Amino acid sequence: MSYNSFGRVLRFTTWGESHGPAIGAVVDGCPPGLALSEAEIQPFLDKRRPGQSRFTTQRQEPDQIRILSGVFEGRTTGTPISLMIENVDQRSKDYSEVANAYRPGHADYAYDAKYGLRDYRGGGRSSARETASRVAAGAVARLVIPEVRIRAWVERIGTIPILYSRFDEAEIDNNAFFSPDATAAAQWEQAVDAARKDGSSLGAIVVCEAYGVPAGWGAPLYAKLDSELAAAMMSINAVKGVEIGDGFAAAMSTGEGNADPMRPGTEESSGPQFLANHAGGIAGGISTGQPVRVRVAFKPTASILTPVETIGRDGQPTEIRTKGRHDPCVGIRGVPVVEAMMALVLADQKLLHRAQTGRN
Amino acid sequence: MSYNSFGRVLRFTTWGESHGPAIGAVVDGCPPGLALSEAEIQPFLDKRRPGQSRFTTQRQEPDQIRILSGVFEGRTTGTPISLMIENVDQRSKDYSEVANAYRPGHADYAYDAKYGLRDYRGGGRSSARETASRVAAGAVARLVIPEVRIRAWVERIGTIPILYSRFDEAEIDNNAFFSPDATAAAQWEQAVDAARKDGSSLGAIVVCEAYGVPAGWGAPLYAKLDSELAAAMMSINAVKGVEIGDGFAAAMSTGEGNADPMRPGTEESSGPQFLANHAGGIAGGISTGQPVRVRVAFKPTASILTPVETIGRDGQPTEIRTKGRHDPCVGIRGVPVVEAMMALVLADQKLLHRAQTGRN
Amino acid sequence: MSYNSFGRVLRFTTWGESHGPAIGAVVDGCPPGLALSEAEIQPFLDKRRPGQSRFTTQRQEPDQIRILSGVFEGRTTGTPISLMIENVDQRSKDYSEVANAYRPGHADYAYDAKYGLRDYRGGGRSSARETASRVAAGAVARLVIPEVRIRAWVERIGTIPILYSRFDEAEIDNNAFFSPDATAAAQWEQAVDAARKDGSSLGAIVVCEAYGVPAGWGAPLYAKLDSELAAAMMSINAVKGVEIGDGFAAAMSTGEGNADPMRPGTEESSGPQFLANHAGGIAGGISTGQPVRVRVAFKPTASILTPVETIGRDGQPTEIRTKGRHDPCVGIRGVPVVEAMMALVLADQKLLHRAQTGRN
Amino acid sequence: MSYNSFGRVLRFTTWGESHGPAIGAVVDGCPPGLALSEAEIQPFLDKRRPGQSRFTTQRQEPDQIRILSGVFEGRTTGTPISLMIENVDQRSKDYSEVANAYRPGHADYAYDAKYGLRDYRGGGRSSARETASRVAAGAVARLVIPEVRIRAWVERIGTIPILYSRFDEAEIDNNAFFSPDATAAAQWEQAVDAARKDGSSLGAIVVCEAYGVPAGWGAPLYAKLDSELAAAMMSINAVKGVEIGDGFAAAMSTGEGNADPMRPGTEESSGPQFLANHAGGIAGGISTGQPVRVRVAFKPTASILTPVETIGRDGQPTEIRTKGRHDPCVGIRGVPVVEAMMALVLADQKLLHRAQTGRN
Repeated sequence: MSYNSFGRVLRFTTWGESHGPAIGAVVDGCPPGLALSEAEIQPFLDKRRPGQSRFTTQRQEPDQIRILSGVFEGRTTGTPISLMIENVDQRSKDYSEVANAYRPGHADYAYDAKYGLRDYRGGGRSSARETASRVAAGAVARLVIPEVRIRAWVERIGTIPILYSRFDEAEIDNNAFFSPDATAAAQWEQAVDAARKDGSSLGAIVVCEAYGVPAGWGAPLYAKLDSELAAAMMSINAVKGVEIGDGFAAAMSTGEGNADPMRPGTEESSGPQFLANHAGGIAGGISTGQPVRVRVAFKPTASILTPVETIGRDGQPTEIRTKGRHDPCVGIRGVPVVEAMMALVLADQKLLHRAQTGRN
Repeated sequence: MSYNSFGRVLRFTTWGESHGPAIGAVVDGCPPGLALSEAEIQPFLDKRRPGQSRFTTQRQEPDQIRILSGVFEGRTTGTPISLMIENVDQRSKDYSEVANAYRPGHADYAYDAKYGLRDYRGGGRSSARETASRVAAGAVARLVIPEVRIRAWVERIGTIPILYSRFDEAEIDNNAFFSPDATAAAQWEQAVDAARKDGSSLGAIVVCEAYGVPAGWGAPLYAKLDSELAAAMMSINAVKGVEIGDGFAAAMSTGEGNADPMRPGTEESSGPQFLANHAGGIAGGISTGQPVRVRVAFKPTASILTPVETIGRDGQPTEIRTKGRHDPCVGIRGVPVVEAMMALVLADQKLLHRAQTGRN
Repeated sequence: MSYNSFGRVLRFTTWGESHGPAIGAVVDGCPPGLALSEAEIQPFLDKRRPGQSRFTTQRQEPDQIRILSGVFEGRTTGTPISLMIENVDQRSKDYSEVANAYRPGHADYAYDAKYGLRDYRGGGRSSARETASRVAAGAVARLVIPEVRIRAWVERIGTIPILYSRFDEAEIDNNAFFSPDATAAAQWEQAVDAARKDGSSLGAIVVCEAYGVPAGWGAPLYAKLDSELAAAMMSINAVKGVEIGDGFAAAMSTGEGNADPMRPGTEESSGPQFLANHAGGIAGGISTGQPVRVRVAFKPTASILTPVETIGRDGQPTEIRTKGRHDPCVGIRGVPVVEAMMALVLADQKLLHRAQTGRN
Repeated sequence: MSYNSFGRVLRFTTWGESHGPAIGAVVDGCPPGLALSEAEIQPFLDKRRPGQSRFTTQRQEPDQIRILSGVFEGRTTGTPISLMIENVDQRSKDYSEVANAYRPGHADYAYDAKYGLRDYRGGGRSSARETASRVAAGAVARLVIPEVRIRAWVERIGTIPILYSRFDEAEIDNNAFFSPDATAAAQWEQAVDAARKDGSSLGAIVVCEAYGVPAGWGAPLYAKLDSELAAAMMSINAVKGVEIGDGFAAAMSTGEGNADPMRPGTEESSGPQFLANHAGGIAGGISTGQPVRVRVAFKPTASILTPVETIGRDGQPTEIRTKGRHDPCVGIRGVPVVEAMMALVLADQKLLHRAQTGRN
């Protein structure tokens, strides 16, 4: 076991704090011979990078990736891939307030209760800055599963959902919100702007689908594909809920309403044809060949300007309001992180699958 | 890694198929010196046992637990605890239909796609019968965390929720549905009866809370308490969604609305007083000392009498309807399973916590 | 991690005490589709079974294996294989002496120091009886590596070695000592008989070779094939030393003397031809295609009739002499155990190899 | 599982190649609150550093350690500790010969057979340069076990052993060979000089003892202290044999000769007094309170000037002689590495012990 590692055969370990000199990941178990350079990773980091619009934190981090090991003459060698991103814009000038009082909804109190001390600068290890390491590792994982295409988007910000009747995948990268619905994006612009100006914050829901996953990935019982995805998504900062397929809606359904009938596949496809995908592409913890679909709830960040009652390290009552830079809606930048975790889980399960079955 | 094990320091492995001679679990890493006998485990199995009311499957299994190792003179020795339950009422007479055609919504097709063969008798390894092993292991885990009280209930069956204004914990064990709301229980009786008679099935939502968890359990980043709980719950048969605290509702909230303000604790309690628990008792992946709250969505079982389009092993189109015995609402018997997984995760995290911090 | 499991992808967990109702193993990660029944396992257990000659313990155990899961219609299904052996001849009548005093050289004191209690009947969990579970698991592992042939023998008992000039593999199964040298076997007969009559015991060295291991198994750096073998062998009761290839003799050699020169392979073999095998078939932690060779030292069992100074549980000085049944030379029955561990390590590494490289 | 990680609760992962930009380790699970800075680590690296005498490789590496995470205000925070050492003196000018032909005794052929490609510069990942990362991680591990003192020395180089009658611990750090026997050191100076001039190499035996390990560390059955030590030591480059206590000598002994009798402890010590330590401080896989003693065999490095028959990547016969810089006796610099692995295993087992038993 390892506190800061994830994955079974393709396994990554992340390290680093928000305001330390650098953050990074070590990706172990990557198959040899894959073409890998910084150029394969950087675009994914650029999608997650802060400071790109006024709707995310204004911290300016170039998030320049460096590969320190595991690649030779442009190809992975099968040895551990060490990835490092230097922290540039730390601004750790004044953290006395956070040092002395616990921000409710943040990990401050819990870390102190556990470890007896904490790196309070920018949240230290509990900062969402760590997710940059995941995105970098996820870019490596994508190389392991070239047969799979992964796409995530924001489905809702606060009380405003997209309409799937307006769904346009091409639109996702055209706006600052990873919205597949241009109309919703325009509404979110106003809502997030308002939240930002008020020093408030908004929650969001991110949906992620993976196309091209063959039937058979996932390992019952305790390495089930859905179980691994749930763990992966719930480990992301601010995530409070995970659904596979219809999720909680399935609980309100009936066996008939929730059925995914099957027909013989067409000549082109190897698997059967499914008439519905309530299951989100997973049955018994194993992929069915349908798109794998996950839905993830991000809470509104606890960093708000409104003063909140709290206590100090000394146990005395006080109030705290979070000034500084922050994301008014952390779910937005969650999109590339959710994609990365999807890639990491699927790549790991692919390797696990071929370990046991010998099938590639 | 292990396909059929769960946990890091307190680690259990389950084995067995629905219609094999027996099922069981090996619990490894249990602290020595705990008083353990079959009598500590049996009551939890009895809660989950099938055939107790007309609302669950009519398979008659006594689910008699046997402890085969790890206990000496009534106390755990620190060595692996082997638990076994013999299967008695297998009735594996005629499975030719299931053998030759895939039941949509079940693991039939996925298992065949993965392994190239499957034990089709009663679902084999993918049967919810395996959860009896979890309940037995969970009973051992409870001994590791005597400071914690765990309680789960059904919050909704199909379209009928309980009302929290009628919540009465004492009521939970008074009805066949683990309902804390007697009125809802009466409504569910009709709904489940109707579903049973129609050969249909219903989904359900189970809520589980753990009281007495001290602040500090949970290990960032990839052994976060919420991440482990999500994996544990999503690994249960028929589960399609997991929420911690407010879950998806948090995504529709604001930073102010989602805040859990803190005040100094009273003399009796060691930790601070929280004015709300939107977070479900977990911040940054670590327990805060508040009740840990999880919400779990169970889909309606795919075993229904209505014929569903499917394909045979030969790839030809056919129809299938599930006769035989089944649960019209698998979520009901999910209650003791959810409790068991909560106990297993918390016990593991307690040991993990003291490994790193030296605090008990 | 798991205290009582071994292996990474093909992973087994053992449970059970010397005088409990049964012992067993759960083998997880076994590929599906392999022909497996009790008949595949029993012969290996029979080789290890006690009471077969006067040179081993007189405890009479039929060691009848039962497969409780993971096999359907004679083939492995890819789900965990539960193996159980009932203990029959426990004779746990009088253990008061062992209960109250620590036998030096046994685990008695260490277990008490660690756990605060122990199952003292026949050594409890620390008994070599557990190795029957390994042998059963090893029989399953052999099915995973049909390309490999494994053969172990006793090279030395006490001060009497075999002569390799008299080495005859066919002889190994012809005597009670797994000796490839009939002359040495005759000498050992006298030596072990003498030790048995004196209530003394003798150490032994076991050598194990695996033929047919292809180049490429083993995973640097911390899953190196030699590192895994060392862990596997050193985990066997009474083992105090492990060598790969020339082992300690290599430390007295020079670079020239220790070289394993290579020539192009012949038409029949795919790999190169090696002119020597000082390395024992492993370079950089990876198999080279040569025979994998391990040498294992077993200490003489501490169960002797000569009184030894010791202390009681009460801390007071006393003496102890081990009456009861025991092996005068535990290394003899170590042969099938060493073979089993070799099979388990190689099978695991094969699966690990194909996980990363996709090559079978 | 992880290919490049070691340890269970205190777990480290190493990365990096001989001629890459840097090497490093991530240490996960370190308890919080320990005083740690580069100054705690550097002295151990300095002991292992190449180019310090003419008896080791002339590669000039300052081996300057950097801590990139996990430490705040001079104390460990409980989060992963990222350690990095930049490679400075790579000299990867001409490796065409090694690129095109396999050096027998090195990992060249095995890596190519496994991965299909390899970083041939200085041995890439298989270079002993990786052990610097272990030494750094080991320095962190030492902080976890302040009650333990670890000391290793060279016992033999080639055919020349030390005499224990001349053993002087203070002498170990006074010579270039970590010899506790000044006379042997003088003899080794001549022998290693001769080997160096001839372009030959010598094997060595390293002994390591740990004092102050309390009774109770080690976790049967597959996390036994001796099993973990065997895996740890055998994973070091060039190691071919590991013994615990008397090791192979025990195989030639009798039960009486190998006994470690016990007497009640004196007032000062908590445990019993042992009259011998044939067992090397471990019984049943658990520490007894005696010094833990390991003996490790290093083969002579395969890098020699004498031409050795080999084959090229093209399969054609050729010869190779290793020019370049190398250690004439790699066992010498193995001393700090063996100490580091001892520290890492013991620290991990300490945490594992308290996880299960709650005792610090």
